[in-house]
Amino acid sequence: MRIAVLSGGVGGARFVQGLVDATAPEDVAVVGNVGDDVEVLGLHVSPDLDSILYALARANDEERGWGRAGESWRALETVASLGGEAWFRLGDLDLGLHLVRTQALRAGEPLSRVTMRLAEAFRVATALLPATDDRLRTFIGTSAGEFPFQEWFVARGHRDEVDGLRFDGAESASPAPGVLDAVAAADLLLLAPSNPYVSIAPILAVTSIRDALASRRVPCVAVSPLIGGRAVKGPADRMLARLAGGTSPRHVARCYEGLVDAIVLDEADAHDLDGLGGVRPIVTRTLMVDESARRRLAEAALGAVPA
Amino acid sequence: MRIAVLSGGVGGARFVQGLVDATAPEDVAVVGNVGDDVEVLGLHVSPDLDSILYALARANDEERGWGRAGESWRALETVASLGGEAWFRLGDLDLGLHLVRTQALRAGEPLSRVTMRLAEAFRVATALLPATDDRLRTFIGTSAGEFPFQEWFVARGHRDEVDGLRFDGAESASPAPGVLDAVAAADLLLLAPSNPYVSIAPILAVTSIRDALASRRVPCVAVSPLIGGRAVKGPADRMLARLAGGTSPRHVARCYEGLVDAIVLDEADAHDLDGLGGVRPIVTRTLMVDESARRRLAEAALGAVPA
Repeated sequence: MRIAVLSGGVGGARFVQGLVDATAPEDVAVVGNVGDDVEVLGLHVSPDLDSILYALARANDEERGWGRAGESWRALETVASLGGEAWFRLGDLDLGLHLVRTQALRAGEPLSRVTMRLAEAFRVATALLPATDDRLRTFIGTSAGEFPFQEWFVARGHRDEVDGLRFDGAESASPAPGVLDAVAAADLLLLAPSNPYVSIAPILAVTSIRDALASRRVPCVAVSPLIGGRAVKGPADRMLARLAGGTSPRHVARCYEGLVDAIVLDEADAHDLDGLGGVRPIVTRTLMVDESARRRLAEAALGAVPA
Repeated sequence: MRIAVLSGGVGGARFVQGLVDATAPEDVAVVGNVGDDVEVLGLHVSPDLDSILYALARANDEERGWGRAGESWRALETVASLGGEAWFRLGDLDLGLHLVRTQALRAGEPLSRVTMRLAEAFRVATALLPATDDRLRTFIGTSAGEFPFQEWFVARGHRDEVDGLRFDGAESASPAPGVLDAVAAADLLLLAPSNPYVSIAPILAVTSIRDALASRRVPCVAVSPLIGGRAVKGPADRMLARLAGGTSPRHVARCYEGLVDAIVLDEADAHDLDGLGGVRPIVTRTLMVDESARRRLAEAALGAVPA
C-alpha cells in the first residue's frame, strides 16, 4: 500500500514516524508545509521539513519536541553575545543543515532537490517533498496587524488571536516535482494531526494539490490534532474556536471540506460526532506518547482502507 | 605614545597582544589584512581580522594557534556529513561571528563598522581596522595556475611554489575610515611579524596606505617573521627564497623598501646584516613563546622611538 501524507511540523512528524513504522519507509511520501519557512541570520530555514526529516532519521529530540537530539547552542550564544539575530532558536547541528541548504538554494538548486539530498544523507528512504519549490509564505492577520508566520509564532509567542491567514505566493505556486505523482500513486491519502490552518492549509493553498485531493479516487483520512477539544501543543484549538466556531470533530472536518472521507479522532471527542456529514469518524486514542502509540495511531488511519 | 600597526593573521595577532600589553590597548590601532577574506558556506570570513580580534579579546586558542579557545565543530561536522563545503575549518563559536558579520554586510554595513561593533562586543579597546571596506582579494600565481588565496593556502595546503601575487581590487580600493587617521596620528608605525607577501603586501597594495607610510614623519619599524631564515609557521621562508632570492634580514627589509627605518630581527639572523642599507637592525629574541616573550618583542620594536 502506498501512502501520501500531508504534514506540518512536530505533531505531523511524530505521526509520520508511526506511519513508516506501521508500513515501510519507502511506501510513504510526505508532502511538507513550507509556509512557515523563514530567513534567519541570512539562512533559509524550513522548520516543518526539518522536523519531519529529523523524525524520519530518528535524529529528533523527543523530550524538547523539536530540533535535533543532542543539540548544542554555541553558535547562537555567540550570535546573541555579538548583538545578532538570536530570536529563532538554531542549534549547532541544525545550523549545519541550514548552511548547506542555503548555499544550495543560492546556487539555484530547487528546495525539493536539496531536501532529497539531505534526506539521502540522513539515510531516509521515505520521500520528503516540499509542497512547492516556489516561494510560499504564511502571514497571520491579527488585531495587532499582519505578521510573517514565525514572527507571530516565535517572536510574539502566538499570543495574538488570529483573524485571518494569507498564503503569499500560493496562487502562482506550482507543486514541487513528485508531489502530484505521489498523490496520484497513493492507495491512501492522509492529513497528519497538524494545525489545519497553519500547517495543512498552506499545502492545500497550492491549487493543483487541493484539486488532486478533491478529485481523489482513493480514501483520504484526516487525523485530528485535538484531544478533548484541546491542542496537545500550540494554538490549533484557539484558532478553531475563533475561526471555525468550535473545537468539535466537525469543526476540524470542515477545515477539509470535500477533501476527506474519514477523520481519526480521540476517544475524548467521541461524545460529539454531530455534523460530520459524510465524513466517517474513526475513534481511537490519539496522544502520541511513545513509539507504539504513534504506530497505533497510524494503524487506525490505515484501517480506513480494507486490507 | 600612539602606535599604528599593520598586521596579518596569527603571528601578527600574537605580536599585537604583546604590543597592547607593553603599551595600552587604547593607544594602538591595528590595520588588518583583508586579502585573505573568503566566502565559505555563503558566509563572509575575515580570517586575519578575526585572529587579531580573538587575540585582543584573549579569546584565541593558544595551543592550536588559530581560532577561538574552547571551540567545537558540531555545525561543520554536520555540514560534512551532508556533503556540504567543509574544507575551511569553521568552529561553532567562530560561525556565530561569521553569521552576524555576513548578515550585516548583506544589509549594507561596511566591514569597518561591523568590525568595530564586533570589537566592542568583545570589549576590545584597541581600534581594529580593515585595510579597506572595498573588495580586495589576494590571488596566488603558481605553475599549477592562479588560485584565490584560501584555495592555495588551505585547500591545497600552500604546496605550490609561488611565482607571483595579485591583489584583485587593490587599485580602486580606498582605505577604510580611520586607517589614514591612525597612521597620521601615530608616533610609531609598525609592520607586524606577518608574511610580507600575503599579509602585509595586500595592505600596502592600497595606494594611499602605502603613500602614507612612504611619506611618514615618524619611525616605521618592521618585525621580521623569520628566525634563522625559517618561518615559524607557514610559507614565508619559501616565498622569500623564491621571490626575493634569500631569507636574510635584507630580503625581508627589501619587501618594505622605502617604508621602514628599522627592522627587528632574531639573534639567529644577526650574523648576516649585509645589504640593509639605511634600515637599522634591532636584534633580539623574536620567538613569541609566551605572554612575556610577546611583550619583550613589542618592547624591542617600541625602543625604536627615544623615550
